[in-house]
Amino acid sequence: MARNIQSLERAAAMLRLLAGGERRLGLSDIASATGLAKGTAHGILRTLQAEGFVEQDAASGRYQLGAELLRLGNSYLDVHELRARALVWTDDLARSSGEAVYLGVLHQQGVLIVHHVFRPDDSRQVLEVGAMQPLHSTALGKVLSAYDPVAHSEVVEAERKEFTARTVADLTAFETVLDLTRARGYAADVEETWEGVASVAAPIHDRHRMPVGAVGITGAVERVCRADAKDELRPELIAAVRDCARAVSRDLGASRF
Amino acid sequence: MARNIQSLERAAAMLRLLAGGERRLGLSDIASATGLAKGTAHGILRTLQAEGFVEQDAASGRYQLGAELLRLGNSYLDVHELRARALVWTDDLARSSGEAVYLGVLHQQGVLIVHHVFRPDDSRQVLEVGAMQPLHSTALGKVLSAYDPVAHSEVVEAERKEFTARTVADLTAFETVLDLTRARGYAADVEETWEGVASVAAPIHDRHRMPVGAVGITGAVERVCRADAKDELRPELIAAVRDCARAVSRDLGASRF
Repeated sequence: MARNIQSLERAAAMLRLLAGGERRLGLSDIASATGLAKGTAHGILRTLQAEGFVEQDAASGRYQLGAELLRLGNSYLDVHELRARALVWTDDLARSSGEAVYLGVLHQQGVLIVHHVFRPDDSRQVLEVGAMQPLHSTALGKVLSAYDPVAHSEVVEAERKEFTARTVADLTAFETVLDLTRARGYAADVEETWEGVASVAAPIHDRHRMPVGAVGITGAVERVCRADAKDELRPELIAAVRDCARAVSRDLGASRF
Repeated sequence: MARNIQSLERAAAMLRLLAGGERRLGLSDIASATGLAKGTAHGILRTLQAEGFVEQDAASGRYQLGAELLRLGNSYLDVHELRARALVWTDDLARSSGEAVYLGVLHQQGVLIVHHVFRPDDSRQVLEVGAMQPLHSTALGKVLSAYDPVAHSEVVEAERKEFTARTVADLTAFETVLDLTRARGYAADVEETWEGVASVAAPIHDRHRMPVGAVGITGAVERVCRADAKDELRPELIAAVRDCARAVSRDLGASRF
């Protein structure tokens, strides 16, 4: 098999570096983090800057991600068939549940949020389209791990960080969670990722019965969990999420049975 | 000056190609559009695919933009100082005006929307973060063209397309619009870009008095224009937009005078 193009791989590594951690880095930091000579790193950065993929702060000389990435990311969403099919159904789910709705797909070692409908109230909320969520602790991530073999291998190999005292990090215990997810057809996350927050999600399948994503709601445990059993989501919310996932799957051509 | 890296320039050209027009293209189309041999184009595409910048549809073999661009675009927003400073003020503007609020910066030959607050009602709205607007016909674009010399050179050289019968395309007439914009401190667009839609925008300056962006509202002419003078925006909306622009500028360190 032919080799991939080294300068492209190096440029991608620089963009990943600028997307995490510090986010504003000088030439020396970038060169040493990517293991390149300063001259080599500078040639790549200069080209990335000319194409709009990185920007350089005039005062400090530090580099950060560039505006062209936002434009291209928006274009990615424009051709996203799953997202397009889900728009109306996720709006309906936000209205009927009164909670925020997220649509996620597997990307690298996590869940990439491709659509986010705000909770329909007057509160200030931050859009999370483009953000990543962990596979092992969120409802969206558990659904993908349970139904998508690629997601499953990622989550098994990943470090499963304990975000709260309730996070299931142990592999055997986690596999039991996935068995339960497949048996029930949905996954829940009650304070396993964020204290005070619970979510429930269900899988979306395409016409080939392939799991292509997950949809779910997220909200305060006081609202979304049962009053009499605080570890469980309210059954009408679970039903609404599963209805939404079925409707989107049908729109993608999945069979009814 | 050292030359930029050719394979990176070619990769960027492919991503731009996939972001416009057809958006799902086969190898032959991409090779011929970029003027490359098929083998060369394939090497670049394969590397872009390995890095998550493009995806290939299994059934058709066609290429489209990849999920990594959405993730990186989101990270770009996370470090965007102007956007971070504007979040609270633009929320307030949407509430007080009852209309959708947009924050835009110059990117390439247009206005890149970096923040969008939905109109505070129950209607279904499409998020336009990452979308581009024309410089010559929108209120945001006119503000940037009037205050930012780089935007001005772009708009003078660009093809100024007549979207409606009211678009000002002629250069002399357009320069008069920019003079008026500078004299008044804001710009308006009454059905010059979209029939039935009007907008008003004002400039945001940083601590060096440099124009770094524009903020504005957009809505139906029936709501945002004066009942007695349909070519003009309601004065209380103009005042609210200018107040918002001043507040964000102050937050960026601009002096009060």
